[in-house]
Amino acid sequence: MRLAILGLGLMGGSVARALRTRAPGAWTVSAWSNSGRGPAAAITAGAIDVAAPSAAEAIAGADVVLLAVPPLDCLTLIDELAGPLRASLRGGAVVTDVASTKRAIVERAVAARLPFVGGHPMTGRETSGFGASDAALFVDRPWVICPAGAANAAVERVEGLVRSVGGVPLRMDAREHDAAVAGISHLPLVLAAALTEAVLGEGSPHARALAASGWRDMTRLARGDPAMGAGIAATNADLISDAVRATRVSLDAWLADLERPGGPDAREIEARFAAARRLLDADPEGRNDGE
Amino acid sequence: MRLAILGLGLMGGSVARALRTRAPGAWTVSAWSNSGRGPAAAITAGAIDVAAPSAAEAIAGADVVLLAVPPLDCLTLIDELAGPLRASLRGGAVVTDVASTKRAIVERAVAARLPFVGGHPMTGRETSGFGASDAALFVDRPWVICPAGAANAAVERVEGLVRSVGGVPLRMDAREHDAAVAGISHLPLVLAAALTEAVLGEGSPHARALAASGWRDMTRLARGDPAMGAGIAATNADLISDAVRATRVSLDAWLADLERPGGPDAREIEARFAAARRLLDADPEGRNDGE
Repeated sequence: MRLAILGLGLMGGSVARALRTRAPGAWTVSAWSNSGRGPAAAITAGAIDVAAPSAAEAIAGADVVLLAVPPLDCLTLIDELAGPLRASLRGGAVVTDVASTKRAIVERAVAARLPFVGGHPMTGRETSGFGASDAALFVDRPWVICPAGAANAAVERVEGLVRSVGGVPLRMDAREHDAAVAGISHLPLVLAAALTEAVLGEGSPHARALAASGWRDMTRLARGDPAMGAGIAATNADLISDAVRATRVSLDAWLADLERPGGPDAREIEARFAAARRLLDADPEGRNDGE
Repeated sequence: MRLAILGLGLMGGSVARALRTRAPGAWTVSAWSNSGRGPAAAITAGAIDVAAPSAAEAIAGADVVLLAVPPLDCLTLIDELAGPLRASLRGGAVVTDVASTKRAIVERAVAARLPFVGGHPMTGRETSGFGASDAALFVDRPWVICPAGAANAAVERVEGLVRSVGGVPLRMDAREHDAAVAGISHLPLVLAAALTEAVLGEGSPHARALAASGWRDMTRLARGDPAMGAGIAATNADLISDAVRATRVSLDAWLADLERPGGPDAREIEARFAAARRLLDADPEGRNDGE
């Protein structure tokens, strides 16, 4: 099979490396990116077959076209694939993506009548670029697939690619996906930024000196690519907003506990922390944490 | 020198192990805890010299008494040291602690006229008990010292203990300490709990299935000991409340960005994420993260 990757940073690069490692010979990979830096590095690393000089040349003859750019750039590429690039798209090709939000992207592709299957690997890190790519990034991680009305053969071809890189395909409606990640992924990103603003915005010198691993963990997401964060916020704003409002309700209840007349009731606060921990203990993802 | 540790979980146990590893022969260590489990395990592990049957026997003859229990239990022990245990406290002994908040504890000890030097090692993990203790826990980490009017010789003796376990003593006013950790440590703890409540409180099945490393990091603090969290909240409520209010102001500004009439302005949001990242990049603790 022939794969064209448009954008070759952490995600696209990790797909390319994973195919070389886990499915040698099964896929021929061409890649193009706006700057060309990722494809050049990937050729040197032996991770792709062709560093194409243009998107049109990258996608010519491809069975699968993978959009591996931030959400807003995905929308731009979909417009181009529906427009000037359409002629280079082989009949029977399927286009997919790895963006963190799905409704806006799937709707744009469906409206443009592209042969499109949305995708989102549930993995990531706060580094970016081909240099940060990792052949093991997707192993045993869920990879959401939003069929968006595509033919079953097209969906299965994308699922085949996902399995080739070690991921576990998980079909889901785009709205269900966006609601779930608004809570477990996008809200934490906004909270990490809000925490940073609230604590470091005033520039407390002692706070910086005393920061330990808890602070590092809680702000890690805010160390990521701002363009990625902006694309996520712009294409999932309504559901992220719902999640922020739910957090505000919870914080207001914490304020009531902390500012209780006569002083906080330690037993009530302990019960509240214990209830939160029980919610997390029921979470299979967290249960193995720290073992 | 003779050290008595009251409470022998993660912190007390790590101090004991660190002395054995880094300063063999320099300290004789007796320990007592309410359940007796930590001291029994520590004797088996060869980490202490005496598992005392009572607090009175543990502190008899000690040069330094270390309170290694959660904040509220520290207050109780201070009352006992000022009361029934006073007679067992050797003349010239100094009492110190490792609790996460300092004002309430230092004030109680000063009011009780105990020879007290407050302390707080800036390190931790979300595991607890002697079994989780680690001889390297304090190495090269700041350890805040609040002299609280104690004689300089007493302060220096506590600083000597801190250096013996690899920590870096850092003298600070109790209020300055509590304000700094309210932002970089206690606010993150409350946010981790609030995030958990907001996302898992409704029990979204998809959210659990899709949770990845970002979610794990952002909720790690809420997996800690609820009694510890309650003690922190109860003894630093006013400053944590200030920090929560500052976060709410920031979240309200995020809501305004997300709910902007006509849709979010991606450039403005990108600039906001970039500004947060610059604040973090200026943070020496974070700069080496992920290297």
